[in-house]
Amino acid sequence: MKEKYPSDSVCIMTDLVLPGETNPLNQLFGGELLARMDRAASIAARRHSGYIVVTASVNHVAFNRSIPLGSVVTIEAKVSRTFKSSMETFIDVWIEDRSSGIRTKANEAIYTFVAVDDSGSPVKVSPVVPQTEIEKQRFDGALRRRQLSLVLAGKMKPHDATELKALFV
Amino acid sequence: MKEKYPSDSVCIMTDLVLPGETNPLNQLFGGELLARMDRAASIAARRHSGYIVVTASVNHVAFNRSIPLGSVVTIEAKVSRTFKSSMETFIDVWIEDRSSGIRTKANEAIYTFVAVDDSGSPVKVSPVVPQTEIEKQRFDGALRRRQLSLVLAGKMKPHDATELKALFV
Amino acid sequence: MKEKYPSDSVCIMTDLVLPGETNPLNQLFGGELLARMDRAASIAARRHSGYIVVTASVNHVAFNRSIPLGSVVTIEAKVSRTFKSSMETFIDVWIEDRSSGIRTKANEAIYTFVAVDDSGSPVKVSPVVPQTEIEKQRFDGALRRRQLSLVLAGKMKPHDATELKALFV
Amino acid sequence: MKEKYPSDSVCIMTDLVLPGETNPLNQLFGGELLARMDRAASIAARRHSGYIVVTASVNHVAFNRSIPLGSVVTIEAKVSRTFKSSMETFIDVWIEDRSSGIRTKANEAIYTFVAVDDSGSPVKVSPVVPQTEIEKQRFDGALRRRQLSLVLAGKMKPHDATELKALFV
Amino acid sequence: MKEKYPSDSVCIMTDLVLPGETNPLNQLFGGELLARMDRAASIAARRHSGYIVVTASVNHVAFNRSIPLGSVVTIEAKVSRTFKSSMETFIDVWIEDRSSGIRTKANEAIYTFVAVDDSGSPVKVSPVVPQTEIEKQRFDGALRRRQLSLVLAGKMKPHDATELKALFV
Amino acid sequence: MKEKYPSDSVCIMTDLVLPGETNPLNQLFGGELLARMDRAASIAARRHSGYIVVTASVNHVAFNRSIPLGSVVTIEAKVSRTFKSSMETFIDVWIEDRSSGIRTKANEAIYTFVAVDDSGSPVKVSPVVPQTEIEKQRFDGALRRRQLSLVLAGKMKPHDATELKALFV
Repeated sequence: MKEKYPSDSVCIMTDLVLPGETNPLNQLFGGELLARMDRAASIAARRHSGYIVVTASVNHVAFNRSIPLGSVVTIEAKVSRTFKSSMETFIDVWIEDRSSGIRTKANEAIYTFVAVDDSGSPVKVSPVVPQTEIEKQRFDGALRRRQLSLVLAGKMKPHDATELKALFV
Repeated sequence: MKEKYPSDSVCIMTDLVLPGETNPLNQLFGGELLARMDRAASIAARRHSGYIVVTASVNHVAFNRSIPLGSVVTIEAKVSRTFKSSMETFIDVWIEDRSSGIRTKANEAIYTFVAVDDSGSPVKVSPVVPQTEIEKQRFDGALRRRQLSLVLAGKMKPHDATELKALFV
Repeated sequence: MKEKYPSDSVCIMTDLVLPGETNPLNQLFGGELLARMDRAASIAARRHSGYIVVTASVNHVAFNRSIPLGSVVTIEAKVSRTFKSSMETFIDVWIEDRSSGIRTKANEAIYTFVAVDDSGSPVKVSPVVPQTEIEKQRFDGALRRRQLSLVLAGKMKPHDATELKALFV
Repeated sequence: MKEKYPSDSVCIMTDLVLPGETNPLNQLFGGELLARMDRAASIAARRHSGYIVVTASVNHVAFNRSIPLGSVVTIEAKVSRTFKSSMETFIDVWIEDRSSGIRTKANEAIYTFVAVDDSGSPVKVSPVVPQTEIEKQRFDGALRRRQLSLVLAGKMKPHDATELKALFV
Repeated sequence: MKEKYPSDSVCIMTDLVLPGETNPLNQLFGGELLARMDRAASIAARRHSGYIVVTASVNHVAFNRSIPLGSVVTIEAKVSRTFKSSMETFIDVWIEDRSSGIRTKANEAIYTFVAVDDSGSPVKVSPVVPQTEIEKQRFDGALRRRQLSLVLAGKMKPHDATELKALFV
Repeated sequence: MKEKYPSDSVCIMTDLVLPGETNPLNQLFGGELLARMDRAASIAARRHSGYIVVTASVNHVAFNRSIPLGSVVTIEAKVSRTFKSSMETFIDVWIEDRSSGIRTKANEAIYTFVAVDDSGSPVKVSPVVPQTEIEKQRFDGALRRRQLSLVLAGKMKPHDATELKALFV
């Protein structure tokens, strides 16, 4: 199966924050951001696999900075690593200063998708070959995060989660 | 500070799945479900604390079963444990069979909120006293999940995450 | 046909009021509340009957208190009485004080649904056995309201509306 | 205070039914129609009074015909009678055949609004002078409906509802 | 083919501007207005032709006046001229003063639609016979606008656009 | 005033087409696409100018290909030329094949924005220096399009529209 780079799957979604998308504090409503990230990340997973994809899990979302009404928000998603039919996708969210154009990181998230064929059965996807330093870190971390998911779901014994265990011992 | 039970904060949000809330596979769109869970869980955190709350992180969401168009979806959220101003909230999602009324678990999620005062500064919230067996398990697991969050965010050394470490050693 | 209690059909929908759901006075937009009540009440009717249900009429909605932006709104719907295939549903709407948690009644409404089979033909539904004092009052009033509907629609002569007539004579 | 005709307040809202506005039966979702009627009728009440108006009650909505996806829906609202600061508004809903253009009545509804000044206090509104036959019928019926509302709300004794009583005796 | 008047196709869509439809300046969001005009104009084209219609182009929209939150907005669309299967539609947008009822023109737009049969193939539509002075001006201008569209799309040589050319020579 | 390249303002908005965004033919609803293009193009104009921008006109939109439900749609907007405070923005819309990833052009549009300061008064914006062949063509065409706008709005005599006139003589 042909290897792919994270940059092959990158999806960029730049959009505004209008009043109908805010919470009562005049910031982008958290649920709206979760939905936008789901849309962007599913496009990255679809571009990587060439298949229909379904959201399998949201592994982590950190709301570090609130995003005020009227902001320009850029969501950038790419596949960080794959396991058989599942794809871990990293999402970075940026806002930018209107006058200077300087970008600030607002959020970070990890969503996992599964590629399926037309009958809904999982299909194998290409492996990822990370290129940049951060892509390599995220690729390496993905195995620990996967073991963690399996342990939390009771599908792997902590003892067998060797990568994860190595962190603590 | 007065202790509270998880049942004091429980929020129930029962709703339909209409066509405008689906994905192209005629199932509830994942982003819409993430947004509904954010609404329900923030109400639980607000009821527990009596304060304005903001979403701090989404720690885990497992999409176990897709939810078809026309379903009745029940989201049940309650605060499982608190740490100073932050509240871990567990969310269970159910669908029900129309004829028999039998409920099936579709999803599970963990969101964390922070209580803030009118100036936006974090405020201390009441501790939780779990009652049922499952509330006790979730209460116990919350400490491990919190250590995990801190480790992943680089705010705690794996070595100091004693509860988490105990899982692997 | 097996009798059912109003509590068998109760549907609870707790949700927020976000800016995209308000009117220019910063209150929950009336049309949005009418739509939420339709969703909640149709779930109650579906739970009572086990069938697909369609809205037949809105018999009465009283907007007693406006609901401000940022409120937590609880809609509680249950079937109050049935007539062949039609189900009268009572809806109570509550808002709650954030600090004290005290609930205040904001609105009250009555919607009527018809149960239909897969071909769209009306099907008979179970009778209701009211339990609490208020359920009994609503059950008794339902007959007068039904006669009133039939009189207003020109399908019953005022003279034959014996229950209703008794109010005035 | 200057008298006004129903035709002075008429509001026409013609619009499509798109997939995002349907129920799982591919018909206009009842809650969406209730919301559109609220928007149209509030414009009629505002045109009649020249003031901000708030929805006071929905007195009656009959869903006679379902409205299929892709329909052109015309909502026509006008003020039928006023009582001090409150305005009864009649709403007729039509769908039309695409080829022949022939219109069919789909629904009928009655909503009541109150005119308020900038501080939210009710203000007196102009009386209505009905012109057409149907406007006169609706004008006459409005008094009975008002008495009915007051009786149902416990604000008038059935014995004092002389217009309504006359129907039954 | 039977001729039709512009008044045969007129579509009136009167509606409010609610907070969920605004931009961060508390005015009707431009994209929302573009969408409403598309809905209204497509109804006019459908009424003229009796067929399904699809948007072929937006030829011109002038945003002369911003439309504030809380406005009553009236969109009036009618077919101005037809060319085989395509229909040019003129849209006028008005806002009105709440107290005086006086209307002010806010926007003007031209959209073009094509009538198609059930298989999606273009079908011939009736010609338009303009009646009023402004309908005649718009009818006359339509030919120049059509030539302009064809020239801009590279489907007509400027030299052959005789009506348009006459403007400049 | 510092010159800028079209690539300095480019805004990329990649997104899905979900059922709630379609027309009854299961294609992206035209009004929804018009709204998305308005959001993307206003971000390009804001990036170019560093100011708040308001939509002044939509000069041209060609709906060449319908966009089916489930598509990945990429909207790419950049400022093509400026005149004092107004900015012409070109928008290209692409859809991509899921398996092969091959992109097809679906639509093209031109929107014009005006930069304003905090009091709403127009402010001067930087000139554009086109780089690529297509950017140069669009830059050159912009002057003709501007003259055309002014002629259509009655603000310039056809005789004085020298660039436009040259096309036809």
